[in-house]
Amino acid sequence: MGPGPSDVHPRVLGAMGKATIGHLDPEFIALMEEIKSLLRYAFKTNNTLTFPISAPGSAAMEAAYANLLEPGDKAVVCVNGVFGGRMAENVRRMGGDLVLVEDDWGTPVSPEKLRATLQANPDAKIVGFVHAETSTGAFSDVKTLCEIAREYDCLTIVDSVTGLAGIELDVDGWQADVAYSGTQKCLSAPPGISLITFSDRAADHVKARNTPVQSWFLDVSLLMAYWEGDGARTYHHTAPVNAMYGLHESLLMLQQEGLENSWTRHREMHNLLASELETIGLQFVVAEDCRLPQLNLVTCPQDVDEAALRKRLLTEFNLEIGAGLGAFAGKVWRIGLMGYSARQENIQLCASALRHCLA
Amino acid sequence: MGPGPSDVHPRVLGAMGKATIGHLDPEFIALMEEIKSLLRYAFKTNNTLTFPISAPGSAAMEAAYANLLEPGDKAVVCVNGVFGGRMAENVRRMGGDLVLVEDDWGTPVSPEKLRATLQANPDAKIVGFVHAETSTGAFSDVKTLCEIAREYDCLTIVDSVTGLAGIELDVDGWQADVAYSGTQKCLSAPPGISLITFSDRAADHVKARNTPVQSWFLDVSLLMAYWEGDGARTYHHTAPVNAMYGLHESLLMLQQEGLENSWTRHREMHNLLASELETIGLQFVVAEDCRLPQLNLVTCPQDVDEAALRKRLLTEFNLEIGAGLGAFAGKVWRIGLMGYSARQENIQLCASALRHCLA
Repeated sequence: MGPGPSDVHPRVLGAMGKATIGHLDPEFIALMEEIKSLLRYAFKTNNTLTFPISAPGSAAMEAAYANLLEPGDKAVVCVNGVFGGRMAENVRRMGGDLVLVEDDWGTPVSPEKLRATLQANPDAKIVGFVHAETSTGAFSDVKTLCEIAREYDCLTIVDSVTGLAGIELDVDGWQADVAYSGTQKCLSAPPGISLITFSDRAADHVKARNTPVQSWFLDVSLLMAYWEGDGARTYHHTAPVNAMYGLHESLLMLQQEGLENSWTRHREMHNLLASELETIGLQFVVAEDCRLPQLNLVTCPQDVDEAALRKRLLTEFNLEIGAGLGAFAGKVWRIGLMGYSARQENIQLCASALRHCLA
Repeated sequence: MGPGPSDVHPRVLGAMGKATIGHLDPEFIALMEEIKSLLRYAFKTNNTLTFPISAPGSAAMEAAYANLLEPGDKAVVCVNGVFGGRMAENVRRMGGDLVLVEDDWGTPVSPEKLRATLQANPDAKIVGFVHAETSTGAFSDVKTLCEIAREYDCLTIVDSVTGLAGIELDVDGWQADVAYSGTQKCLSAPPGISLITFSDRAADHVKARNTPVQSWFLDVSLLMAYWEGDGARTYHHTAPVNAMYGLHESLLMLQQEGLENSWTRHREMHNLLASELETIGLQFVVAEDCRLPQLNLVTCPQDVDEAALRKRLLTEFNLEIGAGLGAFAGKVWRIGLMGYSARQENIQLCASALRHCLA
C-alpha cells in the first residue's frame, strides 16, 4: 500500500512467468496488437500512436519531451510536486527554454496561473503538467489545462502515471496531445515499462522536426516502425517479452472490470479508508476536492516517529506504506490504494495496524 | 535458437512470477546488492559502478555514449555490423564528432585500421566497438582494441550484449572503460533490462563533464545514487522488480556453473552444431578464428526460400532461428546457441529439422 509498485494480481504474476518467446514471433506480434488496442481503451483514445515503452515512467516522460521539444523551444512546465520538477529538469537538459508555473505541493495546478503565463509567453510551444502527483496525492484538472493550452496553440504533455485507471482520464475527450502512464500503479502490473499515446497533432509536430530526436532509444518514429504494421515491422530493440505478458494480462483485467468501474472502485475504497482513518484521528494533507483516491497523504502525528512506524508496519504486519518526498519528507505517510491493492481487506489491515501502532 | 531472446530456464521464469515487493523494501535493496556483486563476477571486474539499467541493451549503449560524450567530442566508432552502426547513430544524434572505422560484415574490427585512424585523429576521446556482433556472428579482439585505444588516451566503450557469458570477456584484465551487456542472450533471462560497468577512469571522466548528461533517465550519477549505499538511496525511478528477480536468478545460475565453464559449454555446443551442419552440407559465413560460438551465421542454399524455411521450423518444429540483417537479409540464417538454449537436445532438434526441410 505504498505509492507503487502496487500489489500485483496472481493472474498477472502467472503471466510474467510464462515461457519467453521471440520478440518477432507471430504470436508475440499478435500480442503487441492486442496491447495497443487495450491501451487505447485504457487511455480513452483512438490515437494510432499508442504503445508501450520498454522502460519505466521516467523514460516515457523523457520520450514525450525528447520527441516534441527541439533545442530553444519554449516549454511551460507546471510544478506542484516531484514529477512536475522532473519535467522541468528534462526541459533544461534538452536545451529547451523553460518557463515554470509553480503551485504549492498538495494543491492542484492553477489554471489561472497557466493562463497568465501563456499570455506573457505567446511563443510557448509546449505545456506540461502532472495529472495525479504521486508525491503529493493531489490531482489537477487536465480538461481545463488542456483547453487553456490549446487556446494558446500549445501542445500538452500529461503525466498520468498514477492517474490511469484510478481516476477519470479521457485523452480524446480532453484533447490531450501526449499522455503517458506506468504499469505499476492502478494497473497493478510489475514496474519496468510505461505506456504512451500521441495525438495526430503531436505526431505531425514530431514529423515536422528540424533536428533529429537526440535519443535513438526513445525516437518515436523508430519505435512506431517497430510497433506498427502487420508483417513488415522494423527491428528496433528487443521488447521485454515477459513484461508485455504481464501488461497484457493487467489490461485485460481492466477491460473485464470496466474502466469506469475501476474508477468507482478506487473512489469507494478511498472512502472506506477515509472513514477508518477518521476514527483513528488521522488527517489528510490534500483538500477533498483535489484528493486522489488512489494515493492518500496522511499527516503523521507530531509525537510519532514516522519512519519507525513504517518499519514496524513492514516487519510486524508485512504492510508497506510510503514515506513523504521533498517538502513532505518525515511529515506524512503515503498510503496507496492502487489497482489490486485497492481492496477492503487491505484497508482493514492498514487501519487496524495503524490503530495498534499509534495506541 | 534465434539471435535472442534465448530460451529462458524454468528457474528464471519461476523467479519472474514471484510477488512484486516495493523497490525500496530492505529485501529488494539486499537483492540489488547481490545483483551488483554477481554482475562484477560476470564482467570480471571490480568496478564500483557496475549495475543494471532498467531498459534494454540499446539503452545501455545510449547510456554509455550519453555519459562519456559531450557535444563536439570526437568519437571513433568501429562498424562491422548493425550494432556498430547503431553506436555511430548515437554519436551523431548526441552532436559528437564521428569518425568511422569500417570493416566488412562478418569480419572482426581491424586493429590496424583503428591504429591508423587514431594516428590521424589525435584529438579523439572515445573509441567504441562491438565485442560480439549479433548481426554477423563475428567477434573482435577486445583486448587488443582496448590497448590501442589506451595508447592514444581514449576511453573505450565495448558492446558485449551477445558476448557476456558466451565467450571470454575480461573487463579489468583488458582494461575496458565501459562495457555493457543484455539479459536475453547468454544469461538467458527475459529481455528488458541491461547491464553496464564503468571503470574508475570512465567514472572520473563523467564527473569532470562540462555539460549535463542530456538524458535524465540515463544519467549515471543519478542512477548510482539509487544503486549505491546501504541505507540512504536516492529515489530515481522505480526499478523493474520482477525483471530483477529474473536477472538475479540467471546470475546465480552463471555463478553456480562457473563463468569459464559457461564459455566452454558454448564452445562445445558450437562444435557439436558445426559437425551436424557439416553433414547437412551447410556453410558458415564467418571464418573460424573469429566465429562466435553462440551465434552462428549459416548460408542459405541458393535454391531455398530462407523465410519459408524459418516459418516451417517455427510452425512444424516449434523452433525459432533468426533471419539475416542488413547486407545478410534473405541470404543467411542466424542460429543462436545462447545460455539455456545452448544444449544438446536443441542442436539435435535443429539439425534434424533442417535435414528434414532441406531434403
